[in-house]
Amino acid sequence: MGTARSWIRFAGVALALGGAAALFLLVESIGANMSPPDAGGTAPASVVSVSTVVHAAGPADTMSHLLVALAAIVAATRALGWVAERAGQPSVVGEIVAGIALGPSLLGALWPAATTTLFPSSITPFLAAVSELGVILFMFMVGLEFDTAHLRRQARTAVAVSAAGIVLPFVLGVLLALWLYPRFGIGSSGFVVFSLFLGTAMSITAFPVLARILKALSLTATPLGVTALTSASVDDISGWCLLALVVGLADGNTGAVLPTIGLTVGYTALMLLVLRPLIHRWLARAGERITGPGVLSGAVALLLLSSVLTEWIGIHAIFGAFLFGALFPHDSRIADQVRRQVGPLVATLLLPVFFAYSGLRTRVGLLDGVGDWLVCGLIVLVAFLGKFGGVFAAARLTGLGARDASSLGILMNTRGLVELVVLNVGLDIGILSPALFAMFILMALVTTFATTPIVRALANPRQAFVPSVEA
Amino acid sequence: MGTARSWIRFAGVALALGGAAALFLLVESIGANMSPPDAGGTAPASVVSVSTVVHAAGPADTMSHLLVALAAIVAATRALGWVAERAGQPSVVGEIVAGIALGPSLLGALWPAATTTLFPSSITPFLAAVSELGVILFMFMVGLEFDTAHLRRQARTAVAVSAAGIVLPFVLGVLLALWLYPRFGIGSSGFVVFSLFLGTAMSITAFPVLARILKALSLTATPLGVTALTSASVDDISGWCLLALVVGLADGNTGAVLPTIGLTVGYTALMLLVLRPLIHRWLARAGERITGPGVLSGAVALLLLSSVLTEWIGIHAIFGAFLFGALFPHDSRIADQVRRQVGPLVATLLLPVFFAYSGLRTRVGLLDGVGDWLVCGLIVLVAFLGKFGGVFAAARLTGLGARDASSLGILMNTRGLVELVVLNVGLDIGILSPALFAMFILMALVTTFATTPIVRALANPRQAFVPSVEA
Repeated sequence: MGTARSWIRFAGVALALGGAAALFLLVESIGANMSPPDAGGTAPASVVSVSTVVHAAGPADTMSHLLVALAAIVAATRALGWVAERAGQPSVVGEIVAGIALGPSLLGALWPAATTTLFPSSITPFLAAVSELGVILFMFMVGLEFDTAHLRRQARTAVAVSAAGIVLPFVLGVLLALWLYPRFGIGSSGFVVFSLFLGTAMSITAFPVLARILKALSLTATPLGVTALTSASVDDISGWCLLALVVGLADGNTGAVLPTIGLTVGYTALMLLVLRPLIHRWLARAGERITGPGVLSGAVALLLLSSVLTEWIGIHAIFGAFLFGALFPHDSRIADQVRRQVGPLVATLLLPVFFAYSGLRTRVGLLDGVGDWLVCGLIVLVAFLGKFGGVFAAARLTGLGARDASSLGILMNTRGLVELVVLNVGLDIGILSPALFAMFILMALVTTFATTPIVRALANPRQAFVPSVEA
Repeated sequence: MGTARSWIRFAGVALALGGAAALFLLVESIGANMSPPDAGGTAPASVVSVSTVVHAAGPADTMSHLLVALAAIVAATRALGWVAERAGQPSVVGEIVAGIALGPSLLGALWPAATTTLFPSSITPFLAAVSELGVILFMFMVGLEFDTAHLRRQARTAVAVSAAGIVLPFVLGVLLALWLYPRFGIGSSGFVVFSLFLGTAMSITAFPVLARILKALSLTATPLGVTALTSASVDDISGWCLLALVVGLADGNTGAVLPTIGLTVGYTALMLLVLRPLIHRWLARAGERITGPGVLSGAVALLLLSSVLTEWIGIHAIFGAFLFGALFPHDSRIADQVRRQVGPLVATLLLPVFFAYSGLRTRVGLLDGVGDWLVCGLIVLVAFLGKFGGVFAAARLTGLGARDASSLGILMNTRGLVELVVLNVGLDIGILSPALFAMFILMALVTTFATTPIVRALANPRQAFVPSVEA
């Protein structure tokens, strides 16, 4: 399989990646001497801290408030999710908007009393905890979807597309950091961490949302769909590795970084290279006999342990959740049981709390004046063009037609929920200022929102899509 | 249907109930002049308060601790649940024991550092919130099982059995309160509330556990099983009404009691007599067309609102959760969907937290010396004999044979999880001292534990059980 010409093209992509690495190192050396603004970027809003003292209201009051807040969150996210579906969008777009709408950006701006009544600060720690649990269970299910079968089948195209689709937005993000850091950076994180985080945030593709969009457009089984899913699953694992690196680096003293990286690599290798094959072999033999309530309990208990282990290593709990999910074959009976038994309540109750919690921390009002909105537009543009350009170029080079390469570039721009997870980590560990957080949330929303209508316009499902390189 | 003789027997039961009411009023008039001990019974342990200040650990630390605690809880409850199942017991027995074992009664007594490390006070409010959410979702599912079809079929036997099975233990509980109040009462609640609560706690039958035991013994479809389930479902609604009354009364000033009772009766009537028939009719017409993610979201949002509404009325959130569940036909498509989609995560993650939270508040060590253990034994005896005696007598009077009447008396003694819910409410609102709480927890455990082996010994599933009165 493959001609000499296709190998030359592949080498071209590799060369471009090398150039990107050199550029990255250059930017980092320039940025090393920069400092963030004294004012402007402030520490994350106090509303977000889990350590907020809970004593304003009595226990029963707090619980009542929590129940009312949860009811409002569940109803609002489902309502706007439904509106999004009616409008031909994935429901997650509506759910993200619902979260933002409940927070200070909309409800809080129009009717401040409503937001403070619905979400008094006494319940914020509880929302944070439920939200984190929801994200852990969600990342677990993202890991369960992780499938290397595509990868082996379409290795070269997928690797080229996903690598270019990460590297170009990443480098553009790092370049943008040169300009953003002195304006919106926070003192607590240095330039390296800031720029790496921006690069990571730019290069995210949301595998779960992408999968749902492809399904809604009936493209899942088409070659375009398969390429998109494969590339997105490579992006997935790469994105989490990048984020783990950033979080490890952000932990502060350089001395602690090396052990963190070592432990991260070691744990990832243990999970994916040692345990994963063992579990796959074990399930292939005994899979049918493994049932009952113990399966779910065991999965949940080990999931929580894997999450806390990565938290201890110094990277985020979501990383351990994803890795644990990736242990299991995506089409195994266990994966199916867990998806059926955990999925609905996560989608209905826990993830909406995450959307609302993100929304409560998103203050679009911090975008002050035309200048800030232009910066926000620039971020959207860089994210979009970086992802689109990288994916399009790599897809063309490895032999796709212009229309399919465009569709792929648009599809890979779906950032949705995964971007929200990454951004919240950035806000938590003090890399993103609240203003930048708001801008990136809007970027996630716009790029996800744009995907479906454009792909729908471009795609012609009836016309077969045949990659010319791969058989 | 029914002979003159059976009507005379039915009248006998009614007369006995009247006598019980007179005795109850007599006891209340005696107890009105009593006062609880100054020391001895203390306020609920500070560990339980949701308003505990969360600031000892940083936010990330708190989350890590919570994840570790949840993993330990999930693993321990499933492990002991499995042991219980192997021993021929319902798994809930093992789960309750696991919760107690993780708390100060066992792990905390043997290895105090382990309990404080696993469950630092910083995570207690979160455990309390998750536990409450779990109980609300659980009570919702208990409500979903509520079925009046049995009731209509076997009205007289079921009403007699369940009424006697509530009244006798209730009256005995109130009588016992005369002796317990001066010794273990708490100043904050008067005798009336204390005695009513004790009566209620004695008269609980756990419908969900009973249903699972009958299923495990293959008795569900037998007349004995149907009678037991019917009586238990009457007990269910009666028990919650009694508890609602007690919580309403405990709220303090007599002026607030009447509105609370009025609102409770009004809300219950609205739900069961107005909304329930409407929803049944609506689902009978449109049930098949109601599907999709909106069903679960709508159910969860309205469930939370119903819960908070009863909390506002002045009774407990669980009452609203039960009533909301009881709106739906137990065999409707919606009920089935909710059970499948909510049940597993509630059983695996949320209810175990409730067991652990109860266990953390249970201090068997407070039973100091032989005297306290004798009191505990007395409580177990009164609970057992009250339930057994009432059910047995009513069953014999309405025409059952001695063996079946005995089986029924034993079955109705299953208190399990529902008793735990009631006891935790009693501890929360300051009716039960921690010592009495521990004794009643042990009572719930012993009476539930005793059911399966005795019924197994008595029951002979092959021998048909035919009530001589009902056709």
